[in-house]
Formats: sequence, structure tokens, C-alpha cells
Amino acid sequence: MSLSFNFTHAFSDKAGEHGLEPRDIAYLKPRLLDAIKQMRAQREAGKLEFLNLPYDAGAFATCAQAAESFAGVENLVIAGIGGSALGPAAIFSALCHPLHNLLDADARGGRPRLFTLDNVDPDYASAYFEFCDPRETVFNIISKSGATAETAAASLVIFDLLKKRLGAKWRDHVICTTDPKSGDLRKLCEREKLPTLDLPPAVGGRFSVLSPVGLFPAFMLGLNAEAMLFGAGEMAEFCLSVEFERNPAAQLAAILYLFDTSYGKPIHVMMTYANSLYLLADWFRQLWAESLGKAVNLDGKTVNLGPTPVKALGATDQHSQVQLYIEGPFDKVFVFLEVKEFRCELKLPALYGDVSSLGYLGGQTMNKLLASEFSATREALAKHQRPSLTISFPRVDARSIGEFFMLFEIVTALCGHLYHINPFDQPGVELGKRLTYGLMGRKGYAK
Amino acid sequence: MSLSFNFTHAFSDKAGEHGLEPRDIAYLKPRLLDAIKQMRAQREAGKLEFLNLPYDAGAFATCAQAAESFAGVENLVIAGIGGSALGPAAIFSALCHPLHNLLDADARGGRPRLFTLDNVDPDYASAYFEFCDPRETVFNIISKSGATAETAAASLVIFDLLKKRLGAKWRDHVICTTDPKSGDLRKLCEREKLPTLDLPPAVGGRFSVLSPVGLFPAFMLGLNAEAMLFGAGEMAEFCLSVEFERNPAAQLAAILYLFDTSYGKPIHVMMTYANSLYLLADWFRQLWAESLGKAVNLDGKTVNLGPTPVKALGATDQHSQVQLYIEGPFDKVFVFLEVKEFRCELKLPALYGDVSSLGYLGGQTMNKLLASEFSATREALAKHQRPSLTISFPRVDARSIGEFFMLFEIVTALCGHLYHINPFDQPGVELGKRLTYGLMGRKGYAK
Repeated sequence: MSLSFNFTHAFSDKAGEHGLEPRDIAYLKPRLLDAIKQMRAQREAGKLEFLNLPYDAGAFATCAQAAESFAGVENLVIAGIGGSALGPAAIFSALCHPLHNLLDADARGGRPRLFTLDNVDPDYASAYFEFCDPRETVFNIISKSGATAETAAASLVIFDLLKKRLGAKWRDHVICTTDPKSGDLRKLCEREKLPTLDLPPAVGGRFSVLSPVGLFPAFMLGLNAEAMLFGAGEMAEFCLSVEFERNPAAQLAAILYLFDTSYGKPIHVMMTYANSLYLLADWFRQLWAESLGKAVNLDGKTVNLGPTPVKALGATDQHSQVQLYIEGPFDKVFVFLEVKEFRCELKLPALYGDVSSLGYLGGQTMNKLLASEFSATREALAKHQRPSLTISFPRVDARSIGEFFMLFEIVTALCGHLYHINPFDQPGVELGKRLTYGLMGRKGYAK
Repeated sequence: MSLSFNFTHAFSDKAGEHGLEPRDIAYLKPRLLDAIKQMRAQREAGKLEFLNLPYDAGAFATCAQAAESFAGVENLVIAGIGGSALGPAAIFSALCHPLHNLLDADARGGRPRLFTLDNVDPDYASAYFEFCDPRETVFNIISKSGATAETAAASLVIFDLLKKRLGAKWRDHVICTTDPKSGDLRKLCEREKLPTLDLPPAVGGRFSVLSPVGLFPAFMLGLNAEAMLFGAGEMAEFCLSVEFERNPAAQLAAILYLFDTSYGKPIHVMMTYANSLYLLADWFRQLWAESLGKAVNLDGKTVNLGPTPVKALGATDQHSQVQLYIEGPFDKVFVFLEVKEFRCELKLPALYGDVSSLGYLGGQTMNKLLASEFSATREALAKHQRPSLTISFPRVDARSIGEFFMLFEIVTALCGHLYHINPFDQPGVELGKRLTYGLMGRKGYAK
């Protein structure tokens, strides 16, 4: 495993009376050990399919082959929303050049630009459709059921555009990631003989990043999908077997659950000290909110619970949010993502040594400055009794982000046990969907 | 005024027992009227300078002229952090093409690409420095004091790069926005004879978007800075004079303050139903957190108060956060930003009429779908007793965003009165700054 963990700033030794007491965690140990045992049993019974995604050799080969068939294309547009967009976007921003889409094809290694069309904003969608010449573009439509209104709307525009501009060749510019058997998108693909990738039926959108949802874009971008799955698999084995005290998933679940339910800290801020990891926090934000934000528990009791995830970026948000984090209510816990080694080392030139606010920086590196800002912020928070957890990436690579995805998927499942809710459904969004169908005049939704 | 307001979903008629009672607001009326009277008096006494920014003809002319002198440049890189970056970034994303930086110079109308270098992430910063050829780039360094470590570090790299690559001509590629008299950046500009723009000393970073901080980039991008200031001025006059019941600033301040302090809703979600407005929510996020998150009130009493701002994007976050928003704890109030008329109308082609999840969309528009999603989400939230406020933009243009900026600056000042704290300082970030200086070996900070 490449990630490492430092939870010392979560405890009262560091964070004072707003820090945890170790005995609180020990108290949860039996429940968490039981939950892990259940997870192992469920996996063996063919359930909890997200745990098996790292070992799906079929999906791996199919995605690699599909990507191969589109080699040399200029643009990859992903039409999807929620879990069908956040995973690919997180992989892209973590592992590609920060200005990937601005580079020319050579500098991109012949790999496509990537756009995630994850909204039905007409100005934004039009801009993508105008910019991406259909002849040089592949559209990856991702929707398990095909019923998602936003993705359905984008598909209509895409199909029409491709047919009009490319005639019979339009089928060479689209690939749909959807349920292997059921759903309207599957049926449409069969009728139109469109290439498809299978989205495992038992895997929910927010747990799908290691399925073809994330794999196909990863291959298209020339990323090391194998290492990503390796990292994820390694993390799964570790968290399902290692003893409680060294188990990062069990510790994270216990700590974050306790802060929400017993320490009055329902706001869970994931603050990444690296721009490349910011969209991992966005991916986490869906996982956490949609899995744990529930009205009814497993006994049918109304509970209306769930922590609120917030994404933040260091050092940038030190100049935006940290005033509130340090002085405001004691209602937050922080999960820092830190990077030990960046791809570049950026030297700060020794200029203007006589100017006090510049001179001290000269001859050092921007890397050291960022690391110091992180360290200083974590200390300042702790001194003001604001607890935090730190997850360190030795470097941002395919393996470490694979580990990260699997880690938080397991933490989420474990938190589901602790909260005694179902972390895999999302009943709360139904009413809004039905109201939208009604307003759009879909048959059977007039009321 | 072009913005319009609908607060009906904030009240118990719509949102049930978690909605406000009108009498709660009436109760705050005397305090708010008094606060507005004080604001008028302070403005006349030359204080609250942010209220006067719309009328600063000198700044307007200087910025216009400065932008003129850089006409035809390919890239504008803003080196700034916090209020020195969030305002320009919000203006840019609201008013420029969604893929502005990807368009060629002609399609950009000869205007530069804009990059905001607002972090000291070495990979991210290096990418900008590699991508932007110094010969075709203008660097706008924004820092009131010049002491901000992140901006100071970026400046060192910029100065060194320019000097090495451009020799004596380096001065033609930089302009600094800083205090007119004091501070290390001002001194440096005088020594090096660099062009400068004045950042009014009495205006804090998060209230500076209508100063040269936002004006110069607006002119560089060919935007209608005049309309932006007009909108802001119009909003200021309206909110400082109109009666309480029709005063959007007073109403917003009262409602948001009450939800935080009396209705157990400390999480204030600004959810924009337009991609172009998402960074306005990011700008708001700093304004709200840094102004209202305070440990000590005006009587010196420890209070540790302040609502937590969260940014969200509709319809995208319906598939990420709305499950929690609808079913989770009753700890949130929503401020929706809605757009009545987008720049494009995107037709949904009438294809596959026989497929039930596609057919109903054909022949309609993406515009109508987004509007329906918004309306459905707001209704679904209200039916689950989740209150919300709506601010409608007739269209996203310079005037309406000018109104928005000024509106929330006044709301923030009024909330400062209600919370009885100083909304214009940020004492909480000092410890972190000193610790960073110490770690970086700055003289006098060793301890």
C-alpha cells in the first residue's frame, strides 16, 4: 500500500477538548469487526460487487480493446452525470497534465482531450458541441438505465449531430456504458448496433469508478489502469483482513462517525493540498452525501441523518475558508490529502533578498512552501481545537488513486453499518425526478 | 435593477415547520433599518469604501488605459489568492465563453486567455509557466501588501522568468495591483519602475472585485466593465434607500441570519442552475466565511459563530448532493441562482419517439429541461421541509453580476451587524501565517 495515515491531530492530545478520546474508538471495535466480517461473507456470496471490480479481467480487456479502436481521436466527450462523471473527472485531473486540454496532440502523447458533459446547461453544452468536431470526437454515453433525463437529453443531441454530420459512419464515434441487459439505453444500442461497455448491474453509480465507467476513459488517456486496479485491490484486501488498530478503513469510519454523532461535527471537510486531487474530493462528496444522507434507518425509523461533505483546496482556501474553520463554530472535522512528492520541483529564485517579504523565500522551493503551509494550517487548526486527519500520497499516481477510491468505498460501507442505514440506495431523489418528468410532459407523470 | 427575488419557499407556508414565520423577520426590522442608516452615514463619512467603488472614475479610466496598452496579448495570468483571484475568476467564468481558453485568438475576439494562478502547487504553477510564452503573456500580480507568501513566491518566479527571457523588455509584461503607497510590492514597483494599479487601502480583498482587481481583467477580456459598475451602483442605491419590505439586502440578511441562529440551519448552500454562475458561488463562499466566521464579537465576548457556505451546481449536484439535502438533517438553507434566458437555445431532436425515456424529450429544449429540473428540485426540497431562496438573473451579463456582487457585499455588512461582529477583519488566519513564515525561516518568526 502506498498511502499512509496520520490521525494524531484527531485526538485530544493534539486537538484538546474537541479531539477524540481513544476509548471512544475502542468502543466501536466490535461493531466494526462484525461489519468487516459481514462484508467478507457478502463478497464471497457474490454481493458487494464493487469489491470485485479490481479483479474483473473481462472488463479490463474489453475497455483496453475499445480504447485501442478509437486510437488517435482528438476529443473524448463523456456524457454522464453523478457517478458517471465524477469518477472519470477525478482520474483525469489527478493523472493528466494540469493543462492537458490546452496542449497540442503531440504534447498530449496522441491522447484525446477529455470533456465531461455533466449538466444540461444549454450554453455549456452548446460550447462543447461546437468545439468538438464530430469527425474527431468519440462520445462515451454513460447511464446504467438510460432513463436519466440529463444524459438522455445529451444523447439525443449527440445522436442527431453524429447522424447528420457523419452519415453511416456515425456508429464509429459513440460507445455506451450501460447495463448489460436491461434498460432503454441497452435496447437502443442493440437496435442501432452501437458498441457498448457493461456497467455491472449490482454496482451503484457512486461505486462505479473502477468499472468501465472509469476504466475506458483511463485507457483512452493512456493511463496505467492496471496500477489503478492493483492499488484498489491491494487496499480492499488490506482493509478486509488487517487487525482493527492498523486498519485505515475501520479507523476512518470510526473517527468520522464519532465526530458526526458524538462530537457535534457534522461538517466533514476534505481539503486537498494539491490541485490534482481536488476532484477526488468532489468524487468523495457524492459518495459521502448520497450514501449516508438518509431519512429512514434499517429498522424503518425516521432518522434524517448524514454528515455534510465539503471540498476545499489548500493553500488556496486558507485565504477563503480557514478564517471560519479556525474561529467559527466547532462543527467541523478536516480530512487532509497531502502529497509528498510532486512531479515538478519549482525553485524560487533568489531575487530581492533585501525585501523582507520576498527575501526569505529565495533559494527555497514552492514545494517546501506548500508543505509548510499545510503543516502550519494543520497545527493552527489543532491549536484552536479543530481536529483533523491526514492521508498522505507518496506521489499522485494511478496506484495511489486506486487505493483512495477503494478505501473510501469501504469506509462508506462501514459507516453505513454504524449509522444503521442502507448506504447503497438513494430514495430521496425520486420525487424531484418525477416532478421533472411531469413538467416535461412524460407520459404517466402528469400528476 | 435586473435581478429579481422570490423568497416564498423560505417561509412556513411552503416549507412547513422548518420555514420561517414572517413575524421573525419583522422583529429584526428596527435593527436592520438602524444598520442601513449607519451604513449611509459611514459612506458619507468616507468609510465603507467598497460602496463607492462603482463611482471611481479614476480607477475605471486607469484600468481601461492599462488594458489598452496590452492589446493583442495572448495570455493574461493573474497571480493572486483569495479575494485577489476569486473575483476575477467569477467575472471570467460568468461572462466569457465556457471554453474561452481553448478558442483561437480570432474566436476570442483578439482577447487573451485568462489563467488565475491562485495556489502554490508546484505542478500546477509549472504547467502555467511552461504553457504561457512570456513574450505573449502579461502577468497581473495582485496583492495589497505584497506580503502574502503565495503571491510573493509566484512573483519571484515571474520576475525571474521575464527578466531571463525578455531582458530589458520584461517591464512590458507585468502590472501590479497593490496599495497606492505602502507595502513591499509597492516599493518594489517603484524601484523597478513597474506599471501599477491602485488597490484602495480601505477595501479588503473579499470586497475588492469592483476595484482594479476585477476591473483590469474585465477590460483585458473586452467585457462591459461600465455595465458591471452600473449594476453595482444601482444595487447599492436601491439597498441603502428602499423600504425594508422591498429591500433585497435587508431581507436576505434577515432570512439567512435567522436560519443560522434561530432555525438550526448553519449550512448555507448556494446552488447555481447555470455553469457560468458556479464561480460566483465560490466568490460568495469566501465573502461569507471570512466575514462572518468569528471567534470574538464586538463586545470582546467569545462567540465562535458563523454559517458555513457551500457551493453547489444544478442540475449536476442533484445526482450528488440532493439525496442528503432532501433526507439528511434539517441543517441547511438553499440560495438558488437561476437564469431566465441563456445565450443559446439548445433544441432536443425528436428521435426515438418510441423509446419511453427519450421520446418525451424530443422537440423540447435543454433550456426547458434545466428550468424544470430547478423547479422540481425546489419543490421537492420544500415538500421535505427544506427552505430555499431564489435569485433570478434575467440573463448573465455584466450588469447583473455587478448587482450580485454589491448585493452580497451589503448583505454581509448587514449580517455583521446582526451577528454583532466585525465583518471586515480576519484575525483567525494570523497564526497559520506566522507558522508558515517560521517554517520557511523568515527572520523574526523562528519561534
